[in-house]
This record gives sequence, structure tokens and C-alpha cells, in this order.
Amino acid sequence: MTSAAPDWGTTTLPWCSFSVDDGPRRVGVGVGRSVLDAGAALPWLADEVADGTLDALLAHGPDRRDQVRRAVADLVGTQTDDLPLVPADDVTLYLPWTVRDYVDFYASEHHAAAVGRLFRPGTDPLPAAWKHLPIGYHGRAGSVVVSGTDVRRPGGQRREPDGAVTFGPSTRLDLEAEVGFVVGGPATRGPLTLAEAEDRLFGVVLVNDWSARDLQAWEYVPLGPFLGKSFATSVSAWVVPMDALRHARTAPPPRDVPLLPYLDDTSAPAGALDLALEVRIGDEVVSRPPYRAMYWTPAQMLAHSCVNGAAVRPGDLFASGTVSGPARGEGGALIELTANGAEPIVLGDGSTRAFLHDGDEVTVSATAPGPAGRRVPLGEVRGRVVAGS
Amino acid sequence: MTSAAPDWGTTTLPWCSFSVDDGPRRVGVGVGRSVLDAGAALPWLADEVADGTLDALLAHGPDRRDQVRRAVADLVGTQTDDLPLVPADDVTLYLPWTVRDYVDFYASEHHAAAVGRLFRPGTDPLPAAWKHLPIGYHGRAGSVVVSGTDVRRPGGQRREPDGAVTFGPSTRLDLEAEVGFVVGGPATRGPLTLAEAEDRLFGVVLVNDWSARDLQAWEYVPLGPFLGKSFATSVSAWVVPMDALRHARTAPPPRDVPLLPYLDDTSAPAGALDLALEVRIGDEVVSRPPYRAMYWTPAQMLAHSCVNGAAVRPGDLFASGTVSGPARGEGGALIELTANGAEPIVLGDGSTRAFLHDGDEVTVSATAPGPAGRRVPLGEVRGRVVAGS
Repeated sequence: MTSAAPDWGTTTLPWCSFSVDDGPRRVGVGVGRSVLDAGAALPWLADEVADGTLDALLAHGPDRRDQVRRAVADLVGTQTDDLPLVPADDVTLYLPWTVRDYVDFYASEHHAAAVGRLFRPGTDPLPAAWKHLPIGYHGRAGSVVVSGTDVRRPGGQRREPDGAVTFGPSTRLDLEAEVGFVVGGPATRGPLTLAEAEDRLFGVVLVNDWSARDLQAWEYVPLGPFLGKSFATSVSAWVVPMDALRHARTAPPPRDVPLLPYLDDTSAPAGALDLALEVRIGDEVVSRPPYRAMYWTPAQMLAHSCVNGAAVRPGDLFASGTVSGPARGEGGALIELTANGAEPIVLGDGSTRAFLHDGDEVTVSATAPGPAGRRVPLGEVRGRVVAGS
Repeated sequence: MTSAAPDWGTTTLPWCSFSVDDGPRRVGVGVGRSVLDAGAALPWLADEVADGTLDALLAHGPDRRDQVRRAVADLVGTQTDDLPLVPADDVTLYLPWTVRDYVDFYASEHHAAAVGRLFRPGTDPLPAAWKHLPIGYHGRAGSVVVSGTDVRRPGGQRREPDGAVTFGPSTRLDLEAEVGFVVGGPATRGPLTLAEAEDRLFGVVLVNDWSARDLQAWEYVPLGPFLGKSFATSVSAWVVPMDALRHARTAPPPRDVPLLPYLDDTSAPAGALDLALEVRIGDEVVSRPPYRAMYWTPAQMLAHSCVNGAAVRPGDLFASGTVSGPARGEGGALIELTANGAEPIVLGDGSTRAFLHDGDEVTVSATAPGPAGRRVPLGEVRGRVVAGS
């Protein structure tokens, strides 16, 4: 699927999987408004990217990851002619790697508390464990699709207000603006220290974890979300290396509850990321969630997910959960922006949205502080809702 | 890992992945007490099994699956000399396929009700949706291991009775005796009818979904089990083809609640399987769960899991959840057999078990009705608990 290409400049150097016309899939690097054919530019890398995916690069671990990134940077920095570049507007982009396990967290205090206030008014809005550990669950890796893929409105069971159990296309289809992290190798089992977890973070994607709130509400006791989430999760076509976001490093919010040693990041105080997200329906911005407000850092999420000895595989994807800030207009999901549909938002054309309509195109984009005070883009994630059968 | 070999006879013809000494992995078929080297026996199959896994066979779909099974049966039935057979005791067995998405259900009414009575006394023991749909969740595919693999006691957070949040090796490590189903291709998206789902079932494995009850209790609100389950899920090394279980076909229990059309199996009344499970700790039988008592059939579980349009991939694994019968001694997990630890079971050596001890070896085995009134074995799943760090 093609996607409007940002200007990547020469420092972000994000990864993608692309093809030109009917050609084979290739591994690419975003340079300016072009895509560098990585295997053609670096002949010693050709075997590793021969399948057109990042899988082999991911498998090799941090040393190789850093070596390859430096080589690409050197090439782009020193050689300006004769690079194998293709205009980004001429390429088709694919899901750039094979997603192994997919975990989605719930790492925004503002989102978790807003949902708690909606559904459990009068009680503590956060679950008891929320500030002790990053709550998460496994999602459906096979349903992860690349930005630009249409998302079919899911069918499923719901319970109507009168108690009747019915079946049909979801009537409460929502978006969730999230940030995702692609895990690099080598394959191992936990536990990992926070520093080890940090070193396993290969790169960042933007994520829309589409959610059918009516299906989810009916099914989720006691084992959590299943069909309400598993129909589609969209990710950006570009994987931005963690190293490219070093200017975005920042401190997480103050911790209200002392953390157990494996999560205690007081000695590594810049584990958070200052990303500014923007959520659009069509051309209209409906929210601007600040990622720096997230309570749990990427390294904490990864370290937690394997502290029990779980397998960690190159290609694993974990996402932050809905990114929401404290202010109105900073919610990363319609359930929050519309108070569970009770207060629909009004778009510029006068139409309202309690939840998503067929035909709505949802885009999540983001920028981060870059070199020299400039802001640099991440790859957007975009998807259009099409009618269910 | 080696495993005591059952006598497979000549009709079950289960699949495995094996090696001899330090040789390469090969795809095998159980014949009597031997393993048939499938690629050597059927040269036209060699390419498809060249990687030593079932992945390519799984990808090809029902027609190829049935064709290959017929060919193996013909070979074993007509040619008794010169077959490339290896004594089963001489082989090392591996996880026979690449697990894509792993879903675990909660399909035993007796188990779900027993758990409900323990944790929600005085209320309806079943969640509201339980008889309307097979409740399930995604587990960690990367943590699926083959029978014989040691299972390290997981560390994690728990909340003590006094409210303190502590970290350490699980003190309430449990087994869950389950039946798992390996999904064949081709890759698609749901929905699938019950008949289509039935045709996608490649074969059966036995499953032990190890569970750390203390970790699970602290973490699971509101998104379900995560670290309490994700450290290890053991599966048998043998995949028994669904066709080999045709004599085990039986009717599911009467349905108390009318089912929506996509789950309504009244016109396909033999969707359940009459498997007799046995759970041992060491040499001692601690439970005999009857699989025929399960409320939801395999086809219903698969059809439900993709009714929302979710991806269905060859290599997906879904399991039944704990198999429990209505009688005492038919519970498929210690949480049920010991009333959440309050009534420990007593083993033959006089020792007691509220939950599993380090060194305990847990084995789940099963038999099914076979041809001519004989019972045929399934491949057992076995694992020993080793101390956590």
C-alpha cells in the first residue's frame, strides 16, 4: 500500500519493506523523500535482506543492528551520487517484519483512569496492580497489518441494553492511538534487566489497535479482550530505530508507588520518550496525545513481560496501549474523547462521531525532538473503515 | 527430548519432528514403536518436509493433508519391508511445527463453574457470556515447548494476604490438562462456518498450560492472564491427525442456551471428541478428566475465534482450557483438585500437594476409541518443574 511520504532527512534512517511496480520486495531505508535500497547500497548486507523483510536483521542482535545503521549513515553522509534511491511516492510498502508475539499494554495512567471512571464510577479508577506493574495482554499477531490496509468492521456478539444477545457488525468501533516497539534478537528467555531490555529495542512503529467496544464489553470477563481486538491492528510501514529518537529521551512521570527492583528505573532516568502524537479522522485532528505522559517506559514493559522466564524472540511487538494525556483533547481513543459515546465529537463538516463510521480514514502520526532543535517525523499509521458483511 | 514411545499401531499415524543422534531434523510418522522417516519413505514429499517441520504440510490445506495421509497409510499397509523406520526409543523429538497464534479457551463448564464457586461464592459461578460463546484469550506462542522440556518455576509479583506486594518464585504453580488443536491452511481471514472450521483442524496435541496462580491473581484485572501463563506451555511431540480420531466423535453436552447461527451445531451433532485424559504427578494418577464433557467443540472454538474477521494461519494453535469432568477426581488442575490449595491431595509416598513442588514431573496422557473397539493412545505431554532463580 502506498502512503504519503514524509521527508525523512538524513538522520532518522527508518527501515521499511518496499517494492517498485511488480518487482520483488526489498528492504529500504528512508532518506529524504526517497527510499534507499539497502541490499543494493551495501552488498555485504544483501544476503541478510534478500527476503525483503527485516527478519534476519532483527535476529542478529544489537551489535549487528548498530553496525548496519552506522554503515547506512556513513553511506548517506558521504556519498550523494549513485545511491540506489527510489522516490518514496513510487513504492509500495509492506509489513516490514514477521510479527512473532504481540503484547499490548495499558501504560497510560490518564487513559486507564478515564476508562475506570467511565465503567467503575465511585471506586478507585485504577486497578489495584496498575502502579505496581505494567498491565498487558497478548494480542493476535496474525492480524497485524501495515498502514494503508482497509479495516473491515468486525461482526460479533454483543449484549443489548435489554439483555438480549445479538450478532452483527460492531456498532461501537473505536481507534486506539499507540506506540509500538519492535524487539531485536538474539532469541532468549527472560528475565532481562532494564538495561538489557533497552538494548533489545530495535525500533518504533505507530500503532492503531482497532477496538470493537461492544464485542469487548460482552466477552472480556474473566480472561480479557479477545475478538473485540483481534480483527486488526495496524502498524506504520516504517520502523524508526531507537537510536534516531535519542533526542526524544526524557524522564517518566514521578512514580507514586515504590517499584520492585526489576522495574526500578530511578538510576536510568531517561527511559521515556517525548513523542507528540496526532490523531486524525479524515483530514481533521481529533486528538493530540502526548507520549511523554506515559507512566511505564518501553524498557519497563519489555522487562516485565519476560520477568517470569517467558520467551523473547526477535520480531516480537509490544505496544503501549492507548496514549492519552491529562487534558481534554488528548485522549487516544474515542471511548475517552466521547465519554463512551455519550458526548459525540463534532467534525468540521458538522457530522458527529460517537464511534467510527464506515468510510472513516483514521491516521495516527507523530513527531519527536530531533537533532539541532528540529522535530522529526515518525511513520504514520493509516487505515480506512470498510463495511462489514 | 526423548519420550517413552507408545505403540502407535498402523492406523493413527501421528506426525512428529525427530532426529537420530546428531543428524538433521526430519519429519516422522509414528508406526508401531517406530518412527517412519516421511521424506525418505515418500520421495515426492521430501521437499515439503526438508526443514524437518510440519510447516509446509500445514500450509497446504486439507486436500494435500488428506492426500499425504492416504499415501502414508497405503505405504504402511502394503509395504512391510524396507521402510525407513527408526526405533522410537532412539530418536530425539522436537516441537513439530512453528506455532503462530496461540489461543487458550475455557471450554469446560465443570472447570469454569468450579473456579467460579471458589472465587465468587454465592453468585452465578459462570460468567454471563459463558454459554453464549467460547471464552478465550491469546497466549504466548513463543513460550510453547515440546514435551520433555523442563519448566522453570516462574518469578513474579504477587500480593500477599497482608496486602504487601512482593516478588519471588511462584508459590502456587499449577498444571492445566488440556487438548490442543493445530490449524491447517491455507491462510485466510474469518469468518469460517463450522464445517469450514472442522476442515481446518489438522490434528490434536495434548497440552499442559502451566499456570502460576499467585501471579495470575494479582495481574489479571482487567485484561486477563499474562505472566501467570506466559512462561511455558507444554505440548506433546506427536500431532494426531483429526481423521485418526473419527471413532472418538461424539455429541457435545445438551446446550442450555440457544446458540447464534455461527455456533449452532445442532445439524452437525458429532462435533465433540470422547478422549479419556489422565494426569500424573510422578507415577501417580491424580486425575482422569473426560474430554467428552467439554461444552464447546473444536469447530466452535475455531469458528468463534475468527468470526470477527481475524487472521487464521496454518500453524495456529488453540487449546480447550482445563479439561474437567463433573466428579471429584476429574479436575484438570490442582486449583480444582485441592480447592485452591485448601485441601491438598495426598500422594502414595504420604507427601501432599496443594500446588506443584520443584522436581515434580507432570504427565498428561490420553486415549481415544479406535478401530475395532480398541483404544488408541495420543502423545503424552510431560514436563518437570525445576527451581526458579
